[in-house]
Amino acid sequence: MQAISIGLLGLGTVGTGVVKIIENHQDKLMHQVGCPVNVKKILVQDLVKERTVKVDSSLLTVNPADIIDDPEIDVVIEVMGGIENTREHLLNALKMKKHVVTANKDLMAVHGSELMTVAHENGCDLFYEASVAGGIPILRSLADGLASDRITKMMGIVNGTTNYILTKMSQEGLAYEAVLKDAQRLGYAEANPASDVGGLDAARKMAIMASLGFSMKIDLDDVKVKGITEVTEEDLQYGKQLGYTMKLLGIADREGDKVEVSVQPALLPSSHPLASVHNEYNAVYVYGEAVGETMFYGPGAGSLPTATAVVSDLVGVVKNMRLGVNGSTSITPQYEKQLKDDGEVNSKYFLRLHVHDEVGVFAEITSLFSNHDVSFEKILQMPLKEKGLAEIVVITHQASLSNYENILMELRDLPVVKEVKSSYRVEGSVSV
Amino acid sequence: MQAISIGLLGLGTVGTGVVKIIENHQDKLMHQVGCPVNVKKILVQDLVKERTVKVDSSLLTVNPADIIDDPEIDVVIEVMGGIENTREHLLNALKMKKHVVTANKDLMAVHGSELMTVAHENGCDLFYEASVAGGIPILRSLADGLASDRITKMMGIVNGTTNYILTKMSQEGLAYEAVLKDAQRLGYAEANPASDVGGLDAARKMAIMASLGFSMKIDLDDVKVKGITEVTEEDLQYGKQLGYTMKLLGIADREGDKVEVSVQPALLPSSHPLASVHNEYNAVYVYGEAVGETMFYGPGAGSLPTATAVVSDLVGVVKNMRLGVNGSTSITPQYEKQLKDDGEVNSKYFLRLHVHDEVGVFAEITSLFSNHDVSFEKILQMPLKEKGLAEIVVITHQASLSNYENILMELRDLPVVKEVKSSYRVEGSVSV
Repeated sequence: MQAISIGLLGLGTVGTGVVKIIENHQDKLMHQVGCPVNVKKILVQDLVKERTVKVDSSLLTVNPADIIDDPEIDVVIEVMGGIENTREHLLNALKMKKHVVTANKDLMAVHGSELMTVAHENGCDLFYEASVAGGIPILRSLADGLASDRITKMMGIVNGTTNYILTKMSQEGLAYEAVLKDAQRLGYAEANPASDVGGLDAARKMAIMASLGFSMKIDLDDVKVKGITEVTEEDLQYGKQLGYTMKLLGIADREGDKVEVSVQPALLPSSHPLASVHNEYNAVYVYGEAVGETMFYGPGAGSLPTATAVVSDLVGVVKNMRLGVNGSTSITPQYEKQLKDDGEVNSKYFLRLHVHDEVGVFAEITSLFSNHDVSFEKILQMPLKEKGLAEIVVITHQASLSNYENILMELRDLPVVKEVKSSYRVEGSVSV
Repeated sequence: MQAISIGLLGLGTVGTGVVKIIENHQDKLMHQVGCPVNVKKILVQDLVKERTVKVDSSLLTVNPADIIDDPEIDVVIEVMGGIENTREHLLNALKMKKHVVTANKDLMAVHGSELMTVAHENGCDLFYEASVAGGIPILRSLADGLASDRITKMMGIVNGTTNYILTKMSQEGLAYEAVLKDAQRLGYAEANPASDVGGLDAARKMAIMASLGFSMKIDLDDVKVKGITEVTEEDLQYGKQLGYTMKLLGIADREGDKVEVSVQPALLPSSHPLASVHNEYNAVYVYGEAVGETMFYGPGAGSLPTATAVVSDLVGVVKNMRLGVNGSTSITPQYEKQLKDDGEVNSKYFLRLHVHDEVGVFAEITSLFSNHDVSFEKILQMPLKEKGLAEIVVITHQASLSNYENILMELRDLPVVKEVKSSYRVEGSVSV
């Protein structure tokens, strides 16, 4: 078989890793696919920039057409990022019958369905393992390893930046702002961290994962998102005291035919395997009807880990080329999308209140909860430094989201409640 | 496409699960493979036995030929266990051009290579995901998800029985014998637990995993095995005190072109993700040159989890049938087997000694170690109840196995040493 020619779109962190792995692991690639794999052309923004990988300057181009229109290029690997331009490039590549491997979650969360359709129409593979949780082969595990099972829930720590920040806040008792600055200095957070700390990055990954795991077209807009910018060290410490650890948690939950997908800071029992996922590591907990609980853990980002997923996808593409079966991945979702309404989303909650320390306050709050049929699992009450005020922290039993939001609204109107300080979902005890 | 017909060899725990999943998830299977999947015949030992799954009695047979010789049966699923007879059945099935899915680690560890060759010659698939770590899709992750990477080390908790026993011993401070009896009563250990507690079961899985992960034909005889029967609660408690947790650990390690595969009770730092794998759960930690550290966690046994892996393999077979590409899995190992000799196996060690409590004892022991160029990382010394004796517990720095075994031999000959009580490998700090 002739050598396989790759066109690489982008030579940033991940692109550099791809070049390195193709070079360093050429023997293994040869053994697996039976022919050499060469990078033929690389699209860059700047032809003369200093790079951490040695690349023959004749490989570089600033013109995407040098890749898209080259009939000798078999596979386009997209690691340039961005959405609209990149979508154009990939659609053109697919129409030129080039297979595509992408690490681009932003793109896949928004245009994944369209791209997969076009790939299918053109008999091309479109693989995107690297778009979710970097080096963890989670999409493949959902699609193949658990192919026979019915996935009922996925919980993911799928953003390394926020996990790093929450780990440091929790371990060192530091405030969000201080840790964020530190993370930026160390390269764990971007100069503009908005899409990480705001939860958007995690939401994109959850949309991709939920679409695949539930075989249902989940759009980014279907994902309810809350970031970590309002998480305080007090919340973390109270959580700890009650036996919980805070994580920015992606949740994709299915009951019957209805699903819920969300991203929010949530508390997990500290004994839960996800609670031990520290620093920039990622992990995805998967519940299957038959298999029960499984977890996939590893680096969620980084040059070489992410490139491993990209090049492993490339191996899949080339194996399919040899067998002549590209474009055979089923793309039609099995189910129509049905989202749960707020009355069907059930969870426990952590709630922290400042109340006026008067006789009967606690009874008033308790009866408000019991009017909505919600009871407490754990309660902590202590006086505040500020005279006449007390702090109450509760963990509720299961409550529907709509019910719980009504409670929050009424609490805010209650004269004895000075302030609702914070409120988080509590996860990790499986009821399915 | 016509319905796919399955012949099932065995209707025990896993076989029952396979029947249930094929029934309960028929919709999902149909969606994935595009045609119905039916169990046509089931080989059993006893036609009239009471079973936990409803099966039409006309499906049952005691004659393997009813499956092997039936030209309408496309895929043979082997969940009957056993080695020599079963090997015959599967060789015959493959020669009749039937694809095979097996959950049989005993068979695959011994005859895997032969079976794969025959499958390849007959253009058949032979999949065996369920043979290692039940519901965890670890073989697929090694073969596909990490296809582009060079695996340098795998550490596995791959036997649920021993992990259950060590967890209980550690958490409740109980002795091995007591916990074993309890485990047998609860169904976590067999009436004859020899192959579990002796490490053979784990060794078979490590041989299968190392062969795949290192692309090298590792035989069961290549795996050094030590079981947990001599582990004492004292060892666990001393381990804990020094920050370690005991696990029956399968280790497959590669340096350069040489490998080492072993199974033994070993100590891991309690903060290591594998140390949190409790009870009957399994997990495999994988180090790749590029990806770094990943972990795969889940149920290692059980009817439905194991059956999930079997039926997911079946989905793979049927997808290949639709595409006409069965038997395309590469079977030739990339590397000649090269095993490390004991001088090349490096590790830290935990060592517990009873010594005569005399002046200069400690110096004598220390100098023995330093004569072999081995130094200590941690030392614990305390008097024993028995007068004139003291207990010494040390954790060494890295030492070669041959060096360490010389030290052990010399210690046993040292007059001041009354007894070498126990010695374990210490793992979990990655030097690769």
